[in-house]
Amino acid sequence: VAKRLEKFKTTIFTQMSNLAIKHGAINLGQGFPNFDGPDFVKEAAIQAIIAGNNQYARGYGVPVLNAAIAERFKKDSGIEVDPEKEVTITSGCTEAIAATILGLINPGDEVILFAPFYDSYEATLSMAGAKIKSITLCPPDFAVPLDALKSSVTKETRAILINTPHNPTGKMLTKNELEFIANLCIQNDVLVFTDEVYDKLAFEAEHISIASIPGMRERTVTMNSLGKTFSLTGWKIGWAIAPSHLTWGLRQAHAFLTFATSTPMQWAASVALRAPESYYEELRRDYNAKKAILVDGLNEVGFIVYPSSGTYFVVVDHTPFGFPDDISFCEHLIKEVGVVAIPTSVFYLNPEDGKNLVRFTFCKDEGTLKAAVERMKEKL
Amino acid sequence: VAKRLEKFKTTIFTQMSNLAIKHGAINLGQGFPNFDGPDFVKEAAIQAIIAGNNQYARGYGVPVLNAAIAERFKKDSGIEVDPEKEVTITSGCTEAIAATILGLINPGDEVILFAPFYDSYEATLSMAGAKIKSITLCPPDFAVPLDALKSSVTKETRAILINTPHNPTGKMLTKNELEFIANLCIQNDVLVFTDEVYDKLAFEAEHISIASIPGMRERTVTMNSLGKTFSLTGWKIGWAIAPSHLTWGLRQAHAFLTFATSTPMQWAASVALRAPESYYEELRRDYNAKKAILVDGLNEVGFIVYPSSGTYFVVVDHTPFGFPDDISFCEHLIKEVGVVAIPTSVFYLNPEDGKNLVRFTFCKDEGTLKAAVERMKEKL
Ligand SMILES: CSCCC(=O)C(=O)O
Ligand SMILES: CSCCC(=O)C(=O)O
Repeated sequence: VAKRLEKFKTTIFTQMSNLAIKHGAINLGQGFPNFDGPDFVKEAAIQAIIAGNNQYARGYGVPVLNAAIAERFKKDSGIEVDPEKEVTITSGCTEAIAATILGLINPGDEVILFAPFYDSYEATLSMAGAKIKSITLCPPDFAVPLDALKSSVTKETRAILINTPHNPTGKMLTKNELEFIANLCIQNDVLVFTDEVYDKLAFEAEHISIASIPGMRERTVTMNSLGKTFSLTGWKIGWAIAPSHLTWGLRQAHAFLTFATSTPMQWAASVALRAPESYYEELRRDYNAKKAILVDGLNEVGFIVYPSSGTYFVVVDHTPFGFPDDISFCEHLIKEVGVVAIPTSVFYLNPEDGKNLVRFTFCKDEGTLKAAVERMKEKL
Repeated sequence: VAKRLEKFKTTIFTQMSNLAIKHGAINLGQGFPNFDGPDFVKEAAIQAIIAGNNQYARGYGVPVLNAAIAERFKKDSGIEVDPEKEVTITSGCTEAIAATILGLINPGDEVILFAPFYDSYEATLSMAGAKIKSITLCPPDFAVPLDALKSSVTKETRAILINTPHNPTGKMLTKNELEFIANLCIQNDVLVFTDEVYDKLAFEAEHISIASIPGMRERTVTMNSLGKTFSLTGWKIGWAIAPSHLTWGLRQAHAFLTFATSTPMQWAASVALRAPESYYEELRRDYNAKKAILVDGLNEVGFIVYPSSGTYFVVVDHTPFGFPDDISFCEHLIKEVGVVAIPTSVFYLNPEDGKNLVRFTFCKDEGTLKAAVERMKEKL
């Protein structure tokens, strides 16, 4: 294995999903629904396949999908973008992250991220040879430590990578925090890469795209995907929206990482994104009900449950149960209780920082969530 | 744009396909069929979507597809591989190449490739910080210059990247050439990365996988894809077969480049790969007929046509028409004749080496091929 990837292990999602299968445990680990996506989107994919939309897409996207993304972004954030020059379709948001980082970051560039973080951020930054600085968000509210952030910016800082709503904590960056980050970036000529795949799963406040803050549109790459919003995580349609000078760089990386993304799935995604607002409202209503079941259950089981205002994840402190760290707790939970959660220590530069926290997902049907809670009540 | 990608332009395939549309030219440039893939494969994708196989696949592949690939490889090359430990599904062969190179090559490692080469090889090697050495294959037969190859191997050489049948020339590496490369690699402890996406389009001799040569299985990454063989280039299903110690490295890169590949398309691919031998025979028969139309036509038009024994490409020398280089010839061909071909100079480290050569594809219906020939006869 090349040095750039030496320190990384099999991703925790793969490890935990494999253990779930092996032990017949209820999988509240990796974030994929155990219910299907909407029929109108599946039907659109079927029609695209039948119609013969099966050859290479244009590298940066099927025109109807570029257009649908620009339209959606306008509706959601008020920002007008050129679908041809500022929107790039990728194979999931994971590829958008890789293309953005490999396309825009040079060896030695400093990039700041917030821990805990989705593991691909650190790995792709390492592939790009970036110098990673991590700012830790702490419970109970996972607020951004503004002074620490400010003093971590140097002349070498090229970008800040944010994620809101935030995986794994469910924290949403507040208007105040976003404006602070925006000011810092404008003053120091720093880019923002923002992963907003959970934007439609914002339960308490409106999701704010940092690109909508004055002065930010020109220095922001906004990344998103189809999978979470449409319960079709396996279709792997993602995208990056960025001003054309940044789009150029990320498209170059994209062209040589995957060249193009599945054509019939892109056609279907263009139909999905034109869903009426009621689709999104219903999605949130459903997830709110699921969230209540899981959060109430985790409280009753005896965890310290931290508030999650977005995503389909919730983070808890497991220390009331007396295990030394998140890994040993999760092992016990799988083997003795029959429930899978995700240990968070792998999402920090310093694993110690996450040793009290584990993540549960509520993107499962209500019966599954209730059964998981029952098992924990009985056996933990 | 990051320095690692500074020297690259918009890929020639995108440039030329865009020009084809703009000028209403017949597109014999980028290698995608203008006919559809087989119904039984499309039907399998539709069934997978309906059945609800729409969530994240396992990162390294849906088990039935890993198994189908191992079975196919056994049938084709005689090599037995472990579908779980030695097969990795990627988002097209382009991603297999990127994952292999980013997962296994360190900055400063020397990698040898043969020019002309598919453009992603150079770009991903550049992303990995590799030192690229290029050996030029020359017309008329594009034979490997064995002495030059041998003397280009040094202690720093980590891998040789080969492609057989070869895009753009249609050259197939002979048994003798493959054995020479194998010996060189074994003696100098060098890896081989082999792109075999056109293996089923071998018209004159049997395709040989270098991994089948004694001593090579342990040092070879064999890459392939669904798109060319099943006329479904837009589905973006590729794979890499490698011994487990190499698979580890490339899976690490894959995990962070795309994480996983479209789940329903993987199910469909597993059905495709179990096609009876008659499917492949008919494919070759069809392509042989198309090839005859194009090759005869290009000869009649007055090109110097070089023999192509595999792929769906043929390379010609355009100098009889008096243009100074391949780019100016292709511009004239698009604007004044209404036919798109691919200039080859972008496929060499030194563009001068390719200035006489352009590539045509015959993966189009017979009417289209005949119309393109007619246009050239009339207007060139
Ligand atoms: C490859 S897992 C992608 C993100 C997610 O679903 C998770 O964090 O569980
Ligand atoms: C992205 S184009 C892939 C290869 C091919 O089809 C070509 O060489 O034309």
